[in-house]
Order: sequence, then C-alpha cells, then structure tokens
Amino acid sequence: MNNFDFYNPTHIVFGQDRFAELDTLIPADAKVMITYGGESAKKYGTVDKAREALKGREIVEFGGIEPNPHFETLAKAADIAKAENIDFLLAVGGGSVMDGTKFIALAAKDDSGKYQNILFNGFEPVPATEALPLGCIATLPATGSEMNMAGVITYNEQKYPFMSPLTFPKFSVLDPDLTKTLPKEQIANGVADAFIHVIEQYLTQPVNAKVQDRIGEGVLKTLIEDGPVTYADNDDLDARKNFMWSATTALCGSIGAGVPQDWSTHMIGHEMTASFGIAHGRTLAIILPNVLRERKDKKHAKLVQYAERVWDITEGTDDEKINQAINKTEAFFNDLDIFTNLTHYGIDDEGIDRIVNNMEKMGLTALSETGDLTLDIVRKILVATK
Amino acid sequence: MNNFDFYNPTHIVFGQDRFAELDTLIPADAKVMITYGGESAKKYGTVDKAREALKGREIVEFGGIEPNPHFETLAKAADIAKAENIDFLLAVGGGSVMDGTKFIALAAKDDSGKYQNILFNGFEPVPATEALPLGCIATLPATGSEMNMAGVITYNEQKYPFMSPLTFPKFSVLDPDLTKTLPKEQIANGVADAFIHVIEQYLTQPVNAKVQDRIGEGVLKTLIEDGPVTYADNDDLDARKNFMWSATTALCGSIGAGVPQDWSTHMIGHEMTASFGIAHGRTLAIILPNVLRERKDKKHAKLVQYAERVWDITEGTDDEKINQAINKTEAFFNDLDIFTNLTHYGIDDEGIDRIVNNMEKMGLTALSETGDLTLDIVRKILVATK
Repeated sequence: MNNFDFYNPTHIVFGQDRFAELDTLIPADAKVMITYGGESAKKYGTVDKAREALKGREIVEFGGIEPNPHFETLAKAADIAKAENIDFLLAVGGGSVMDGTKFIALAAKDDSGKYQNILFNGFEPVPATEALPLGCIATLPATGSEMNMAGVITYNEQKYPFMSPLTFPKFSVLDPDLTKTLPKEQIANGVADAFIHVIEQYLTQPVNAKVQDRIGEGVLKTLIEDGPVTYADNDDLDARKNFMWSATTALCGSIGAGVPQDWSTHMIGHEMTASFGIAHGRTLAIILPNVLRERKDKKHAKLVQYAERVWDITEGTDDEKINQAINKTEAFFNDLDIFTNLTHYGIDDEGIDRIVNNMEKMGLTALSETGDLTLDIVRKILVATK
Repeated sequence: MNNFDFYNPTHIVFGQDRFAELDTLIPADAKVMITYGGESAKKYGTVDKAREALKGREIVEFGGIEPNPHFETLAKAADIAKAENIDFLLAVGGGSVMDGTKFIALAAKDDSGKYQNILFNGFEPVPATEALPLGCIATLPATGSEMNMAGVITYNEQKYPFMSPLTFPKFSVLDPDLTKTLPKEQIANGVADAFIHVIEQYLTQPVNAKVQDRIGEGVLKTLIEDGPVTYADNDDLDARKNFMWSATTALCGSIGAGVPQDWSTHMIGHEMTASFGIAHGRTLAIILPNVLRERKDKKHAKLVQYAERVWDITEGTDDEKINQAINKTEAFFNDLDIFTNLTHYGIDDEGIDRIVNNMEKMGLTALSETGDLTLDIVRKILVATK
C-alpha cells in the first residue's frame, strides 16, 4: 500500500434518543446558528428538538439551504453568522445542508470579501486558518459529510468540491429514526451514493492494501443486503442502522487510506447535476456501470476481486466474472427504481455535448486514478449510457 | 446494533521515510521528552533520527521503560517531566512504551501526590482534566496503543488498565521499516495480540452490526494471511505493512462500536503476565482456544459466523464448524511457534491457584460480555489448558 495520512476527529453519536446530549456537545455559552434545508426539518420537529436540547443558548435559524447548495444562499448565511456573532453552527439535514454548513463555517471567518475563493483549490485543502466550529444532526445516510472534511457547492452553475481539516464536524448525531420520514427516492439515492463512494476508492489498481479492501467490500456487501431492505421496509430498524453506518464509513477515510482513488464517476455526475438537476446519488448510479465497462482492462484485477468477494461470483472466466459483476451492479441500482439510461432523464446528444463541454470548461480533462480518462472517453461512456 | 460513541482524533502518519515530518507534528517551541524502552530504540538509531528531525527543540530523554511498564518507573518520568517543564512527550517503542507514556502524560499534570489513583477507575475514563500532549513512533505492531486512549500499567505486581480521551496520541508515525529489527518472537506475539483484540470485540453475541463484523473479519483474515508471512520473511514489505495496519485497526474503536465486548481472555492473560512474566500477546494465545471451547454455547451464533467467514469452513454441522474453527485458531498460534499449554511455561496446579486467587483479589469475578464467566469457569479454562 502507499504511504498515507489518516485523521478524522469527528465524534460520532450514533443511535436512538441521543438528542438531549446536544446540550453537552455544544458549549453552554455558545450562540448557535441552526442551519437546515426545506420544510421537513421543521415539519418533523427536528429543529425544535434541537432547540429544546440547547435551551439556555441564543439560537438563530437559517433555513432554505437547497439541494446542491448555492453559493449565494450560503454567502448570505455567512454574513448573518458574522453579523450575529455566531459561535457554533449546527447543521440539521442531509449532505447538502452539511456541505453548505461547512462552507458557511469557512466563509464566516473569511474577511477577504471573496468567499468564492474557498472553492478554487480543487482537491487541495482550503488555505484557511480559521473556521466556525460545526456539528451535524444527519438526517440522510448518503454523502458521508457527517464524518469528513469535504463539501461540494454550486457556484456559477458548476459544482465545486472543497475541503479543510477545519471543517470536520466536531460531532455528528446519527439517529436512524430521523431517516424514517425520508421520501423513498432519497433512500435509493443515498444507497447509490454510499455504494459509489466505496467503489471510487476501491475499484482502482491493486496495491495490496488488504484491510482497506476488506473494509470496502464489507460496506458494499452491507449496502447490497440492507439498502434494498431499508428502501422497501420503513420499519426494519436493524437494516436502517446498518445502512446509516455504511454511508458514514464509506467516506470517512478508512477505505481510501493508502490506495489509488478514481472519482471519475463523481466528476461526470456533478456535471449532470449542475446541468440537468438530477440528484447526485442518482447521477452516479447512471454513470458507473458504463465507466466500469469502459475501464474493464485498466481495472481488471480489482474487478475480478470485486466480482468474487462482493458478488460471490465464483464460476466462469475472469471476463465473465467482470461482466456479471457490472451487470449485477446495474441491476442493483435498477431494483432501487433508479433508471440507468440518459434518455429517461431527457438527456440527448445535445445534452451529452453540454456535459462534455462544461467538463472541459472546468478543466476536468484527465480523470481517473491513472489520469488518462479523457473527455473523448467521457463522451464514449455517455453515448453508451444513452 | 447498540447505540455507540465513536471518537478517535489520532493523526496516523503511515509509511516509509516519514521521520522528517516530526518537525511539523510537534510545535517548534516545545520542550520534548523522548521516552523509550530498552536498548533497541538507541541501537537502531530511532531515537537519534527523532532528535535529528526535532532539531532546534530542547530534548530530554527518558529510557528504560520496561515491558509491562512499572508504576515506579513512570512516576519517576512524570517527576522529571514536571521538573523539566516538558511540553510534549514522544514515545518511541511498542505498546509498553506507548502505554507508559500515556500514564506519564496524565501523571505529569497530576498534583494530587498519588499518581496511582490514575489506575483505579477500571474501564471508566480517568477523571483528569489535563494531560501533556503525546505523539508516538510505533515500532511494534501489536497493542493498537498508537491509535487509542487506553494503557495498561503494572502496579503492586498487578496489571491495571486505564483510559482517558486526553491520552489519544496527537499523532502516531507507523513506519513498517522500523519493525524489521524486532525479534521474531515479538512479531508472533504482536500477531496474536492484534488477532485477539479483534476476537474480544467480535466473538460475542450477534447484534446485527454488519459493518463492524465485516471490518473485524477483514482484519482477522489479513492477520491470518500476512502475520505468518511477516513472521517468516523479514523482507516482505507488503505483508509487514498489512500486519502493521491490521494491528492499529484492530483496536482503534471501529470494530467494537455498538457491539457487546468480552475481554475475558485479556483479564486472565494480564494475571499470567503479572504472575509469570509471560509476554502479553502470548498469554492471550494460550488462553483463547479454551475460552472459546468453554463458551461455545454462549457464543454459538458468532462462532459459526467466524468459522464460515474467517476460516472459510462451509462443510459440516454448526458444532463441527465451531470445533474446526477453534482448532484452526489454536493451530494458527502454534504455527507462529506459540505453545498453547500452561505446562510449557511452567504453570502447574499451584500456578493456576495463584492466577485465580489474584484475579479474585483484583475483583475480576464476573467476566465476559454476559458477566457470567466466574472464577470457577476461569479455573476450568486454565485446567483445560494444562
């Protein structure tokens, strides 16, 4: 395996009935901004329960953080946080709210007058030295944002990833009961998102990192088993817990430590979300099968391992195993009612041009763990996905 | 799965040639005490390399921390740390040095005049509010101390565990090359120690914690594959890396999150070390097979899972699978030249009495995840191990 750094100081508070502990997790004298998205955080009482647990503290609410949160919305929140002298941010929601709150945390301590500069560091850490501390009440198992330092923000109709060790949540409360009111579609997208977070770190080139590989395979198997159960049955608490912890484990750093990472599917998916508004997890599920088919030779050894260990395919030649594994992966998404063809989403040849052209504008011209997935190959993948 | 908290803020710096980074990991103005054990840390140049990397800082050395480190030795180190106004502790060594340095970190900020009080909290965190910060250069993959908050100290000829969130190492440098000078016996003990750390968290009662189970199984399989390779072949760097990362992963908290934990084998093993000076990892390997045989019914479901998933035993009845898995576990230790009978270590009936009596004195009368492993059962296990 390659040299690596692993650092993840987020305190996870996992389980039912943990709300009251917010009182000990946030300093008693902190003025808190509770951030959230749409109506559900209010409607289902989550924001109120948080207020109740934080009794005695001054609270400011900032709602309306949209999916794929917009720079303008978050800039406004940061301005309010500054004006109100906020000490602590509490994100109540899914990946968009958590990612957005990480951005607010950095922007609230940025006096450059150009919050957008936070976004232009690619996969390098933001060169900030200060951020507001933040905590999360995670309501949607999907992005893993509750236990990592990264976020993705929409700016000028493009999605920009950013990261900073300053934006690790101080804590994240993961209460499986909070996910019970989610629309089914979001469960499906969350399963796909978590699954592909593992895949992008695992399905690359072998570097004999056995522990990392096996953690990845374990999370994939758990998602295959308990993702569909959670999707189908709202009352299976065991499955819901395993799905929730899988999504967090998928992107907390342990699977990607010391191994090559791909992230092509994410880069293509981000553009599909930015241009066509398709939910993030769904874009990944649409794209992944043909990314794997296209990169079969590059990823040969790991694909065989994936087929054997994750899908228990033991018969046939290597190529047959690989094809079966990719087909099973696609069927897994389809069984979650995720269509994996572009036509279903109204993306035609012109749409494909738009995706490829926008990726070019973003400088995303040499993707994958080997840096040789060009835009011509991206186009080929998209055409195959029509 | 059960509710749980997971928190582990240690920064892991894994890989070859990372020594120079010590300079950025420890504050530039810190006065540092480098702690180490016997001669090897000096002889093989590790202490000197650390000094070189920390150039410009005032350094105090404290060597001579013995295996199963003694209270008196560590109290002396804490007194020196106070007198010298040390700001940062750097442990260079294996579990004993790292555990001992955690104790020094707490004692150096303890003005009660009774450092031993640090030891009397059982598995509850030490009620300290301050500790010196510490970092580790881990030279022996085994205890996992490099990435957790716990330690074990010898006081009055008994082994006392202690833990505090204040004693998570700020960082741990894990350089596989540093382990190449270890005596073979210590590699074998380290493999057994790491293996049984997983077992004590994994082989209990099922609570449907799929991610945790699969991480545990992944670490066990890796130890089964790469432990013996590291033992036999000093030059297989890949295996050595996997062994090293397995040992750290085994006890960093991810396997034990939200599941019942046993630790009986450790409690019996500690007494064997205290009374007979047998190395820690070795005591665990001696005891474990008969703990499992004795607790076959209690642990039935998990033992079947262990047999099938870790040892790939698919034929036979459940009981046959369990027996095979336990026998394979014992053979695994034996193949590392660890004898698993008490007679080999000169422990006779009188020795067994001594172990049981000392455990009684320590109040260790109701062990295991179900709290019903009595001293009568401990005796039975020891007699079966004669």
